[in-house]
Amino acid sequence: MIRADSRDFEIHAERQPDKRMVMSPTPNDRHSLALFTAFYELTMAQAYWQSGQTASATFSLFIRRQPTNRGYLVFAGLDRIIDFLDEFHYSAEDIDYLKSLQAFDPAFLEFLRSVRFTGSVRALEEGAIFFANEPAIEVTAPIIEAQIVENYLLNQVNVNTMLATKASRVIRAAQGRPVTEFASRRTPGLDAADTLARVSHMVGFSGTGNVYAAAHHGIPPAGTMAHSFVTSFEQEIEAFRAYATSFPDSSVFLVDSYDTIEGTRNAVRVAKEMRDRGSELAAIRLDSGELRDLSTRCRTLLDEAGFPGVRILASGDLDEFQIEALIADGVPINGFGVGTKVGTSEDAPWTDVVYKLVEYRGAPILKLSPGKETLVGRKQIFRFLDEAGEYFRDEIGLADESTMGEHVQPLLTTVMVDGDRHWSPRPIQQLRSEFSDRISRLPDRYKSLRAPASYPVTTSDTLDTLQKRIAEQVKETALGG
Amino acid sequence: MIRADSRDFEIHAERQPDKRMVMSPTPNDRHSLALFTAFYELTMAQAYWQSGQTASATFSLFIRRQPTNRGYLVFAGLDRIIDFLDEFHYSAEDIDYLKSLQAFDPAFLEFLRSVRFTGSVRALEEGAIFFANEPAIEVTAPIIEAQIVENYLLNQVNVNTMLATKASRVIRAAQGRPVTEFASRRTPGLDAADTLARVSHMVGFSGTGNVYAAAHHGIPPAGTMAHSFVTSFEQEIEAFRAYATSFPDSSVFLVDSYDTIEGTRNAVRVAKEMRDRGSELAAIRLDSGELRDLSTRCRTLLDEAGFPGVRILASGDLDEFQIEALIADGVPINGFGVGTKVGTSEDAPWTDVVYKLVEYRGAPILKLSPGKETLVGRKQIFRFLDEAGEYFRDEIGLADESTMGEHVQPLLTTVMVDGDRHWSPRPIQQLRSEFSDRISRLPDRYKSLRAPASYPVTTSDTLDTLQKRIAEQVKETALGG
Repeated sequence: MIRADSRDFEIHAERQPDKRMVMSPTPNDRHSLALFTAFYELTMAQAYWQSGQTASATFSLFIRRQPTNRGYLVFAGLDRIIDFLDEFHYSAEDIDYLKSLQAFDPAFLEFLRSVRFTGSVRALEEGAIFFANEPAIEVTAPIIEAQIVENYLLNQVNVNTMLATKASRVIRAAQGRPVTEFASRRTPGLDAADTLARVSHMVGFSGTGNVYAAAHHGIPPAGTMAHSFVTSFEQEIEAFRAYATSFPDSSVFLVDSYDTIEGTRNAVRVAKEMRDRGSELAAIRLDSGELRDLSTRCRTLLDEAGFPGVRILASGDLDEFQIEALIADGVPINGFGVGTKVGTSEDAPWTDVVYKLVEYRGAPILKLSPGKETLVGRKQIFRFLDEAGEYFRDEIGLADESTMGEHVQPLLTTVMVDGDRHWSPRPIQQLRSEFSDRISRLPDRYKSLRAPASYPVTTSDTLDTLQKRIAEQVKETALGG
Repeated sequence: MIRADSRDFEIHAERQPDKRMVMSPTPNDRHSLALFTAFYELTMAQAYWQSGQTASATFSLFIRRQPTNRGYLVFAGLDRIIDFLDEFHYSAEDIDYLKSLQAFDPAFLEFLRSVRFTGSVRALEEGAIFFANEPAIEVTAPIIEAQIVENYLLNQVNVNTMLATKASRVIRAAQGRPVTEFASRRTPGLDAADTLARVSHMVGFSGTGNVYAAAHHGIPPAGTMAHSFVTSFEQEIEAFRAYATSFPDSSVFLVDSYDTIEGTRNAVRVAKEMRDRGSELAAIRLDSGELRDLSTRCRTLLDEAGFPGVRILASGDLDEFQIEALIADGVPINGFGVGTKVGTSEDAPWTDVVYKLVEYRGAPILKLSPGKETLVGRKQIFRFLDEAGEYFRDEIGLADESTMGEHVQPLLTTVMVDGDRHWSPRPIQQLRSEFSDRISRLPDRYKSLRAPASYPVTTSDTLDTLQKRIAEQVKETALGG
C-alpha cells in the first residue's frame, strides 16, 4: 500500500499518479479546488473516520504575530473562502486520483466522495482591521470537514491580508496623492496579481495595471507606455506624437528612456502641438534616477513652458517608505505607481497565520508546543470605541459572552450556518468606502510605518479562567496519567 | 472617451466595466489568460497600430541582478509560457469587456480580436542554470504580439525561477537528506503553491504536501499529522494509536503537541505495540523548540528503547540557512520539511526580471535609462565547459555568432517558430535528472549559500562593438538632432 523508506520524508504513494489524471498546466484545471489540501489532512481524515473520531470541532484561524513594522492587519479573502466552502466537494477525477495513490482505504474514499461542507463559520468582515492573536475566522463543523479545508483558508487569508495590509500602508504614505498598482509582472504567480489588484483598490488605490484583474473585480484599469514603445521609434519625439494621436485627451509620456530632462523637453514640444490642436497633455512619468532632483527640474521646465497643469507621475521600485520620504521632502510628484515591493510585500512577505483546533465535542482544546500556545474555545472579539468613535482597545472573549455597552462592537459575524451561506459579497466600491471609514477610526500611533505603537488587545476574565483550567487539565491527562 | 483627472494616476476608463463582464472570483474564470496583460500594453498596441508601427521586433527577457545570496539562477516556467503563447487569443467576452471601457478605437478592438501569436521564441531549457543579464527568453514577432505577452512571461519566469532557485539552495544545504515542501498554506496565492511543488521537485525535493499540485504534476504527495489531530484526542497516546491503526506501515508521529520528550515516550509505547502486531513506526516529527537538543535526546530515547530504525524528521520555519547550521552541528535529523520561508523565497522574494526591446525592424535597439541599460540585438549565451565538464565561464554574444569549439554550449534553443510549438514538455522525472546533472557541473564556489563567488559572464567582442556603435547613434538621433 504505502511505504516510508529512507529516501522519503513521510508517507509517499507507492505509484506515481496515473498519467491520465495529471491536470493541465493552466489555471483552468478540471480538478476541483477541494484537492487544494495538505496530504496529511486526508490521512488524518482517514484516521478520524476509522477511529470514529467524527464529532463537531471548532478551528480558529488567527495570525500569531504582527509582521515587521505592522501596527495593524487588514482582513481580506472572505469572498473566495465562502465560495470554496459552498462548492466544496471531490470530483470523480479527484477520487480516481486519490485511489491511484494506493494510500487510502477504498471505503474511506467512498465516504470522501460524499463529503460536503455542512458547518458554520463566523468571520471578520471583509476589510476589517484586526490584530495578532485575534480570531479572524472560526469554523465549526464535523472534524473531518473542518480539518480538510485548512490549507485553502490559510493560503487565502495569508495572501489577501498580507497584500491588503501592505497596500493600506502605501495609501497612508501617499497622503491623498493617487496610487496605482503595476505589480502584476512580478507578483509570485497569477493569483497574487489578481488578489493584489482587488485588495489594493479596496484600501484606496486608484486602479490597477492588470487588465484581467480589472475585468474580474470591476476596478479601473490604468497605464501609459513602456520604454519599448519609446525606443521602437527612431526618435523619442515621434513616439510621443504617435501616442498623442491615439490618446489626445489622456496621454502620459514616459520621459526617461534616454535622458529625463531632454525627454521632458520633447514632451513639452509635443504638448504644444497638442494644445494647437485643442487637447492637453495629461502627465509625464519618471521611472528612474534621482526622483527628488528630477521631478523638481521637470516641474520647472513644464511650468516655464506654460504647462502647470501637466502632472508628474513617478514609478520605479517605490514602496511606502520611499513615498513617505519623497513627500516629506516636498517633491512635486502628483501620483505614484507601485510595483514589485508592494506586490511581494517585500519587507514582510508572509504572515504567521495558523488554523488551530480550539474545541472538540463541546470541550475546549489547548496546544502547549513551546511558543505556540493557543487560546481555547469558541471566541469573539469585542472592540471598544472611544466617544469620538475611534478604536480604543480590543478584548478577546468567549463567543457566548455578551457585549458590554453601546461603544462595544463584536467583530465576528456569522457568514455560514449548516453549510448555507448567510452572507453575500459586497461591491468593491462599498468595501472601499467601509474600509476608508474603518482606517480613519484607528488612531495614528498604530499606523506609523515604522515601530508603530502596540494596540491593546487583552483577554476577558472568563477566557483567562477557562484557559487556566484547561491548561492544568491538559497537563494532567493529555500525556497519560 | 477617456479622462485623466487629478484623482487618477494615468489613463482610466470613464465607466466601470459592465457588471455582466465581471469574472467569477475563482481561478476557473472564463476570461482568457490573454487578458493577463498590462493596460499599457493595450494602449501602446493601439498607438502602434494607428501609427503603422507594426514591424517585427525582438524582446529579450532577463534578470538584471543576482538576488541576495544567489550565485546562480534556475530557469523555470517554460511549459506554461509556451502553452500561453500557443493558445493566445482574446475571447468575445474579453473584447466586450475592453469595449465597455470606452477607451479604445472600435476598429483597433476588431483587429485585436484576430490577433494570435505568430512569432518565434528562443529560450533556455527548463531547469537551465543561468546568471544575471543573460537572456532567458527572446521573443521575435510583430511588435504588437511581442509586446502584449510581456506581463504573463515576466510573471511566470519570476515566480518559477525565484522558487526553483530557492529550493535548489535547500537541497544543497540538506546534503542528501530528503526534503519535502509543506509551504502551500502560506505561499502568496494558489498559483505560487502549485508552482513551488513542481519546481522544488525538479531540483530535488522528495515530494509535496499539496495534493492538488501532486495530482497536477505527478509528484509524490507526502504528509503525516497535524497538532489538531493529536489534540482532538483526550490523550496524545490515543491519537498515535488511532493513526497507527490506519497507517500501520507508514506512521509518523508528531510528538511536540504538549512536550516533545514525553511525546517521544508515548511514541515509543505505541511503536512497541505496533511491533507486537508486526509493523514498525516509520518516524517521529519535531515541529518546535530547540531542534539540536531535542533531536539528540529523542534519538537516544528511541535507540535505547530498541528503535534505531525510527527516523527523526524536523519542520518549523526551516530554510537553507537553518538546515545548513543544523547539519554542521551534526544533529541526528533524517529529513526536513520546509514551508513558509521557502515558499515565499523570504530572503529574496522577487527577481529583477525585465523584458526589453532589443531589435526593431532588423535594427538593434538600446535604452539608456540610468542603471537600466540593455544589451542590444538578438543574442545567444555561450557556455564554456572545462575538461571535466564543469561550467567554466559564459559569454553573451549575438545570435548569429558561431560557437567556438567542442567545449562550448549555446544555451538558447528554438522553442517556437512562426507561432508553432517546436518543443514538447518533458516529464518531471526527466527534468529532475537533467537538473541534477547541471547543478553538479557548477563549481561549489558559486553555490555557497552566502556570499557566493561571482560566475564570470562576459560579452563577446562582436556584441561590444555593436553596443558601442548603437549607443553613439542613439545619443545622436533618439533625442532629436
